[in-house]
Amino acid sequence: MQNVIDNIYQQVKCQVHNGNVARYIPELAKIDPDKLGIALKTIDGVLYVAGDANESFSIQSISKVFATSLVFSVIGDDLWRRVGKEPSGSSFNSLVQLEYENGIPRNPLINAGAIVVADMMIDILANPEKDFLSFIRRLAGDQNIHFDEKVKNSEKDTGFRNVALANFMKSFGNIHNHVDDVLDIYFMMCSVSMSCTQLANAFLFFANHGMIPATHEKILTISQTKRLNALMQTCGFYDEAGEFTFRVGLPGKSGVGGGIVAILPKQYSVAVWSPGLNGKGNSESGMLLLELLTTKTGTSIF
Amino acid sequence: MQNVIDNIYQQVKCQVHNGNVARYIPELAKIDPDKLGIALKTIDGVLYVAGDANESFSIQSISKVFATSLVFSVIGDDLWRRVGKEPSGSSFNSLVQLEYENGIPRNPLINAGAIVVADMMIDILANPEKDFLSFIRRLAGDQNIHFDEKVKNSEKDTGFRNVALANFMKSFGNIHNHVDDVLDIYFMMCSVSMSCTQLANAFLFFANHGMIPATHEKILTISQTKRLNALMQTCGFYDEAGEFTFRVGLPGKSGVGGGIVAILPKQYSVAVWSPGLNGKGNSESGMLLLELLTTKTGTSIF
Amino acid sequence: MQNVIDNIYQQVKCQVHNGNVARYIPELAKIDPDKLGIALKTIDGVLYVAGDANESFSIQSISKVFATSLVFSVIGDDLWRRVGKEPSGSSFNSLVQLEYENGIPRNPLINAGAIVVADMMIDILANPEKDFLSFIRRLAGDQNIHFDEKVKNSEKDTGFRNVALANFMKSFGNIHNHVDDVLDIYFMMCSVSMSCTQLANAFLFFANHGMIPATHEKILTISQTKRLNALMQTCGFYDEAGEFTFRVGLPGKSGVGGGIVAILPKQYSVAVWSPGLNGKGNSESGMLLLELLTTKTGTSIF
Amino acid sequence: MQNVIDNIYQQVKCQVHNGNVARYIPELAKIDPDKLGIALKTIDGVLYVAGDANESFSIQSISKVFATSLVFSVIGDDLWRRVGKEPSGSSFNSLVQLEYENGIPRNPLINAGAIVVADMMIDILANPEKDFLSFIRRLAGDQNIHFDEKVKNSEKDTGFRNVALANFMKSFGNIHNHVDDVLDIYFMMCSVSMSCTQLANAFLFFANHGMIPATHEKILTISQTKRLNALMQTCGFYDEAGEFTFRVGLPGKSGVGGGIVAILPKQYSVAVWSPGLNGKGNSESGMLLLELLTTKTGTSIF
Repeated sequence: MQNVIDNIYQQVKCQVHNGNVARYIPELAKIDPDKLGIALKTIDGVLYVAGDANESFSIQSISKVFATSLVFSVIGDDLWRRVGKEPSGSSFNSLVQLEYENGIPRNPLINAGAIVVADMMIDILANPEKDFLSFIRRLAGDQNIHFDEKVKNSEKDTGFRNVALANFMKSFGNIHNHVDDVLDIYFMMCSVSMSCTQLANAFLFFANHGMIPATHEKILTISQTKRLNALMQTCGFYDEAGEFTFRVGLPGKSGVGGGIVAILPKQYSVAVWSPGLNGKGNSESGMLLLELLTTKTGTSIF
Repeated sequence: MQNVIDNIYQQVKCQVHNGNVARYIPELAKIDPDKLGIALKTIDGVLYVAGDANESFSIQSISKVFATSLVFSVIGDDLWRRVGKEPSGSSFNSLVQLEYENGIPRNPLINAGAIVVADMMIDILANPEKDFLSFIRRLAGDQNIHFDEKVKNSEKDTGFRNVALANFMKSFGNIHNHVDDVLDIYFMMCSVSMSCTQLANAFLFFANHGMIPATHEKILTISQTKRLNALMQTCGFYDEAGEFTFRVGLPGKSGVGGGIVAILPKQYSVAVWSPGLNGKGNSESGMLLLELLTTKTGTSIF
Repeated sequence: MQNVIDNIYQQVKCQVHNGNVARYIPELAKIDPDKLGIALKTIDGVLYVAGDANESFSIQSISKVFATSLVFSVIGDDLWRRVGKEPSGSSFNSLVQLEYENGIPRNPLINAGAIVVADMMIDILANPEKDFLSFIRRLAGDQNIHFDEKVKNSEKDTGFRNVALANFMKSFGNIHNHVDDVLDIYFMMCSVSMSCTQLANAFLFFANHGMIPATHEKILTISQTKRLNALMQTCGFYDEAGEFTFRVGLPGKSGVGGGIVAILPKQYSVAVWSPGLNGKGNSESGMLLLELLTTKTGTSIF
Repeated sequence: MQNVIDNIYQQVKCQVHNGNVARYIPELAKIDPDKLGIALKTIDGVLYVAGDANESFSIQSISKVFATSLVFSVIGDDLWRRVGKEPSGSSFNSLVQLEYENGIPRNPLINAGAIVVADMMIDILANPEKDFLSFIRRLAGDQNIHFDEKVKNSEKDTGFRNVALANFMKSFGNIHNHVDDVLDIYFMMCSVSMSCTQLANAFLFFANHGMIPATHEKILTISQTKRLNALMQTCGFYDEAGEFTFRVGLPGKSGVGGGIVAILPKQYSVAVWSPGLNGKGNSESGMLLLELLTTKTGTSIF
């Protein structure tokens, strides 16, 4: 496997990078576009890495999976009363759908849905910010995970559309706390920094029936794990869920920081990072790495 | 396995049926709502059945998978020039999306997409109707498969929305042949009658890397098969792809005739039939059968 | 007044024409773009003309006002059960609105609304085609008004979007007759040919409380006339009702053949013609003629 | 005229009130629903009143006309660079239109448009709040006009949808100042209290070519006045512009406080007040008063 990882890393490293680093969040625009890393961890505990696998980057929307898992583990199916489980079709109509569906977002992996999840975190957690970080550290088995205050502030200063979404849902009664407090949690979530290795560790329980292999700690039930895996499969890649499913064939989640995490049930989790994004907001080289990985190893859920 | 099949059949058979038979197609409204059948076929060739597994019913939208497979096998990736691969989000905005996306349907498993596929069939097949039936018969290894003229006419007389879709796409230049000819093929496709056993046989190649196990005939490449499986996973269940993925965890396709087919890669295909539909247009008892099957056998792609 | 008419005609005639002749209907694309005509008729019976005022052209959507008047005069307020009275906002969402508003078009002056009106004509008229022409001839006091078979066929061959609209409304039950029959009437309406003089004559009753000045024949009640004038004001200019109201300040209706008719209540009706259209589908020079007319004469309803 | 005013007042007073007082703004929900007033002022300076004509109420959206007039008088046609002049069709798609039209609201008389106008006020006025009140006082010739701090705070606490709109437009770059500052001005505008008499006085310049009759002060040019009158005609009544134009036939503007102001060019302005609203948000009895007025006096622009 280390051979495969090295090979595909070299292959992608040599290619011309076409994607563009996300510019709408000023702090992210400063990242070196040539960064490239991959980390794969098997449920047996073997780790394979290549490139910038141990460098931290902004996980952005990948945090939505952590937040959903945390809330799901606490309140169970009540989660679905305020957020749906279906693909949103296309980014373009998120506001239309919110309007017609009375402020209930399509799923927790789009911005509107994650804002509702942030609102729930305030309701159910003693200290949402601290508890959220603790949860991720526990999943990754690594205390050295933090959020980046600069990125958080950068997002806050420019995240008008998220403010719009939160207030719009509040007008439907689907945000219970003060919008400012909710968005504070939301922007904190997005600004967590992690490396590929940390992400691969933290996602491994999704490949292992909801249990962290290293600690045997049960995070979610088998059924709940299956549900979140299915959610990642259908909703994890913005407007490109179908394309990702085609090319990679694994459930996962991407972020505009250039990271992507995916899992193969009962076998492994894998995280990649490359800041250049394609037109849909997914890491160009990251998708290529994962496509080569599944092709060369013949692994896919399909 | 026969034990499991018998058990879940009995369990569902005893339940009160809540779904409603599709009424908008008059011929379908006449079906006995108490019908219930299941057929599972392994790639090793073993068949397990229960209930009305050998009774023919109208496959309706399940035919979209056959049509897409046939065209895909002939023209390859050119298919995706005129039809997308992404979930459509929600039925409600199909026309909006068509308008904004210049007449390119979201995927070939929704009505608009299948109408484009029917248009392609006219372009590439000598005799679309005959060739389509031959293709299905070949997949199922069964010559006794036909379309139901009454159902076809019933759909033609009431399918105004499909006529609207076809003309709308024609106005964007995405229908090449005469709308009447295209819809004739489309309604023919929908009105094909098959039994659960025939469907399980016909879908088995999707679980076997694109090759029909019985005849070793290659229908699609491994990569193409993975693509269509992924498409079924994300787009096969109308506005309930997420829910189905949650509850069943297998790629598949449903039809308003009450049939559902699903596959577990490298293991089996399974077809169920029960005419009562839930609010989203999927067979109520059929989904329950499949959910019980994957739960009891612990099989799921996630 | 003849002075004013001559002056503004000369002024516009000398300008460079920027608009484009409608190309999507092949027959209309053949028209000489330099045509320019104006005819103004006072309720006292005085006629002022300039340029190509007596040359026939395709009235296109102006016919929607005639059809609405005819049906309104026969069935009164029952008309509004199947078609609304509000502006449609923007052309882009016509299909969205139809979907959300259950197949009830926003008003009878957009395509969808006029198709419903055509459907009503079949219900209430012995011979819709003949009766429609008779009605226009009666309004204009001129037997020499016909429809153009070539234009009608040209529209039929390319009017896929109208076929889509009709079938879509049929799926909601808001078209009672066969779609083909309804569209036959609709395309006939659009293909009527009239000159500016004939149009000014035919619209004069709208400026005269619903009575044809020349014959004292009552077509609509005072209240009904006010209603249709109001409808023309808010809905008569596609996506440019506001702009037209700003610049001209008179109720009216335009067509893609390049004609525009407007009225000043209690004073006059005026028709202009110039085939070059602006980006919104209204006659570029026609609007300019009317703007100059109302500016120079200080006449406007505002 | 006083006779007519008295008659129609009595007639409407005796009717059962069907409308509902606006509940979504808590302060407005406390208003006595039986209030009914009317004030009509001719450009010759004669005032006719009946009922609660001199009692102040919250003018709400009527303030949008004042704000637009003030900004239009200062920056002229530059106003239209950031806000359109066309009807919005229907309230339901305001967010859709904003999204597709890059954050440019359809017109300044809908919420989104008035928020942009409030943003412009901050740019061009030394003291927006004070200057806005001064402007209204000047128009009305009455220093005793104020805004209601309680209503303003009540709107601020519940106006999540307006916060959403403002942030959404900010994300498109069409709000230049801090959203909080802009909304502060916006909510202040909405919470101005005026009586029917004050409103009739303040709107009289719209009926008099842009000049205040009492002071001969020129507020807008003839052309600008025509433009705003046209805008009120097509966009002044939420989703009921067509119906109002039908029934009343005068340009005007309504507010959810139950007030409506309308003008007959060259003749009069008229203000009515009754807090019960119909399903579209317009005063039920107010519309009836105006309909009776124009019917009995035979006055209408059509």
